[in-house]
Amino acid sequence: MSESNTTNTLRWEGETDGKLIMIDQTLLPVEFKEIECPDVDAVWEAIKMLRVRGAPAIGIAAGYGVCVGLQTVDSSDAAAVRSRIDEVCDYLATSRPTAVNLFWALDRMRRIANGLPADTDGPAVVARMLEEARAIDSEDRELCRAIGRHGQELLENGSGVLTHCNAGGLATADYGTALAVFFAAQEVGKQLHVYADETRPLLQGARLTAWELQNRGIECTLICDNMAAQVMKEGRIQAVVTGADRIAANGDAANKIGTYGVAVLAKHHGIPFYVAAPYSTFDFSLSSGDDIPIEIRDPKEVTHGFGRQTGPDGIDVYNPAFDVTPAELITAIITDRGVVRPPYVENLSDVREAAA
Amino acid sequence: MSESNTTNTLRWEGETDGKLIMIDQTLLPVEFKEIECPDVDAVWEAIKMLRVRGAPAIGIAAGYGVCVGLQTVDSSDAAAVRSRIDEVCDYLATSRPTAVNLFWALDRMRRIANGLPADTDGPAVVARMLEEARAIDSEDRELCRAIGRHGQELLENGSGVLTHCNAGGLATADYGTALAVFFAAQEVGKQLHVYADETRPLLQGARLTAWELQNRGIECTLICDNMAAQVMKEGRIQAVVTGADRIAANGDAANKIGTYGVAVLAKHHGIPFYVAAPYSTFDFSLSSGDDIPIEIRDPKEVTHGFGRQTGPDGIDVYNPAFDVTPAELITAIITDRGVVRPPYVENLSDVREAAA
Repeated sequence: MSESNTTNTLRWEGETDGKLIMIDQTLLPVEFKEIECPDVDAVWEAIKMLRVRGAPAIGIAAGYGVCVGLQTVDSSDAAAVRSRIDEVCDYLATSRPTAVNLFWALDRMRRIANGLPADTDGPAVVARMLEEARAIDSEDRELCRAIGRHGQELLENGSGVLTHCNAGGLATADYGTALAVFFAAQEVGKQLHVYADETRPLLQGARLTAWELQNRGIECTLICDNMAAQVMKEGRIQAVVTGADRIAANGDAANKIGTYGVAVLAKHHGIPFYVAAPYSTFDFSLSSGDDIPIEIRDPKEVTHGFGRQTGPDGIDVYNPAFDVTPAELITAIITDRGVVRPPYVENLSDVREAAA
Repeated sequence: MSESNTTNTLRWEGETDGKLIMIDQTLLPVEFKEIECPDVDAVWEAIKMLRVRGAPAIGIAAGYGVCVGLQTVDSSDAAAVRSRIDEVCDYLATSRPTAVNLFWALDRMRRIANGLPADTDGPAVVARMLEEARAIDSEDRELCRAIGRHGQELLENGSGVLTHCNAGGLATADYGTALAVFFAAQEVGKQLHVYADETRPLLQGARLTAWELQNRGIECTLICDNMAAQVMKEGRIQAVVTGADRIAANGDAANKIGTYGVAVLAKHHGIPFYVAAPYSTFDFSLSSGDDIPIEIRDPKEVTHGFGRQTGPDGIDVYNPAFDVTPAELITAIITDRGVVRPPYVENLSDVREAAA
C-alpha cells in the first residue's frame, strides 16, 4: 500500500498540464473512488457538493483549482493568464461561501500572481501558480507531520486509544491532526488499537475515521458514542486523542459535540486526554472557552439521520454542533510546534512569543 | 386525552367475548396504530414480530392471548376449554423462546386453570382465565404506579431530567419504570422538562421515549447520546432517572449501554442519578455487578442502523448491549416498595427481609 495513494484526499499529478485527482468523500465509507477534475467547473462542484471537505483540504483544492482553470487559456498570452486567475478565483470563491480556508487560499494565489513582475511571461506565471498550490499542499502536510511527530511520543506501544469525530487525513493534505498522531506512531513501529466513536449525528467517526484507519492498516474498532465509558471501564483505553476547531488562550478547546463528555469520562477513569491541533487553531483573542459560540444545527440531523425517520413528528430537538472542553480536563495540547502542557495560559503564551 | 387510550401498550375491551387491542410498536414513532388481535395466531405474530415488546407487556399479551384462544372453543364443553388452554399456552410459548415473562405468564394461566375444581363448568373456566389475565395486567400497573409514586417525590417542580433508553409505558401495562416517575410527577402538578437520549444503536429513546412523553404531554427534548454532557454543563439537568434490567445485591445496576457513562457524567456535574425498577429486578444471588454477563450484539446494528450503511465494510465493531453502573454512582434506587438509598447491601437486605 503506497502512502501517496491511500488516504490522500487530493493530489496533483504531473506539471502545469497535469491533473487534479481527489477522493469523492461523499461515497465513503461504502465506496472508495477517486475522481479527476478536468475543468474548473468540476473543482467548483466538488467543493460545493462536499466531495472534498475539511478546511485545509478545501484550501488545497482551491489552490490546485486555479491551476486547472489556467489549462484552458493560451499561456503565451500573459495578460490572458492574469485575467483568468482573477476570474477563476472569483468563481471558486462562490462554491462554499462560509469556508474561511477557501478564501485564504484563493487570496494567497491571487496575491502571488499580483506580486510577480509585470513583464513575467505567461508560462512563468502559470508555473508559479502551480508552485504556490504545491506550497499550500506541502505546508499543510508538514504541519500534520509535525503534529504526528510530537504527539506519537505520548503513546506507548500496544496502547488502546480512543478518538472522536474525524480529525484525519481526509480533511487535510495528508495526515490529519489527531489521526496524524496514530499514523506517526505506526511509522515508528508502535502498534495501536484505536477505538473510533461513530460521532452522532453526522457519523464522521464511522464514515471517515474508521475508513481511514482501516485503509492505513491501523487496528480499529468502531463503537457508538455511548459505549466509550464501558470501553474505558474495561481497561481498553490508555489515551484519548481528539482534534479541535478552536482553542482559547487558557487552553479551553472547542471540538465536535461529544468531545467534552469523552474528556469527563477520561478523567473519571484516570486516562490522559490529548487535543491535537495546529498552532493556527489557537485564538488568543478569546480568554476562555466561554467566548466560543456554539452552532446549533438542524433537528433533522438527529431525527432523520439514517435516511429513515427515527424520532416522532414535531419533537423538540437540541442539536449543538460543538462543545467546549475546559482546559483542566486536557492533559496536553499537541501542536505542530510541540506539546504544550498546563498551566496553559503561561505555556501557550511562551509558544506564542516564540512564534512572534 | 383520556389516560386509558394514550400510551397503553395493550388493553382488553369487553368481557370474555371481548377484544385484545395493542399498539403496533413497530410503526412508532412515525405512525400510531392500534391493532386488534382477532385470533391466537395474530397474538403469536404480534409477539414474534415485536409489535408488542418489553418483558412485562409480553407477559400481559400472553395472558390475554389465552383468552383470545378460548373464543374459538365451545365454552359449554369444559374438557374442550381445558384442552384448548394447554394448546394455546404451548403455541404462544413458541413465539419468543427467550422471553422469560412470556413463560411466566403462560405458566401462571395454566396453573390457575389446573387448580380449578374438576367440576368447574366451561364458562366459569373461561371467565377465570380472563380474570387472571386482568390480574397480571393490573398487578403490573400497580407496580408501575408505586414506582412513580415513590420516585416523583425526588423531583422538584420545574426540574430538567435526563433519561436514557426506554423504561416507559410501552414495555409495561401502563406507566413504565423510569417514565412512571415523570408521569406521576405530572399527575401531582409538577412541570418537568425531560431530555431523552436517543440511545444508539437501536434508538429506543428517539423512537419510544420521545414518543411516549410527547403523547402524555410532558415537555421533551431529544438529544444524541453524546450531547448529554453538554446539556448537563449548561445547567439544564437537575436529575437523571433510568431503568434497570438487573440489579445485584450490592446495588450495581445493569441497564442499556450508555447508562454507565451518563452516571459518570452526572457525578461530575453533581447531579443525582436515580435507577427506577421493580423489586423483581433485584437478583440477590449476584453479590456485585461483576457477575452480570454483558450480551454482545450484532455489529450490523452499528454499521447498518437504519437501512443505510454507515461504516466501512469489514470494520471491527464492539457492540455491548448493556453496561453496569456501580452502586457508588447511584444516588438512590426507586422500587415499588419504596426508595432505597446507600449503603445498598444493608438497605436492600432490609427491603428483602420485609418482603420475605
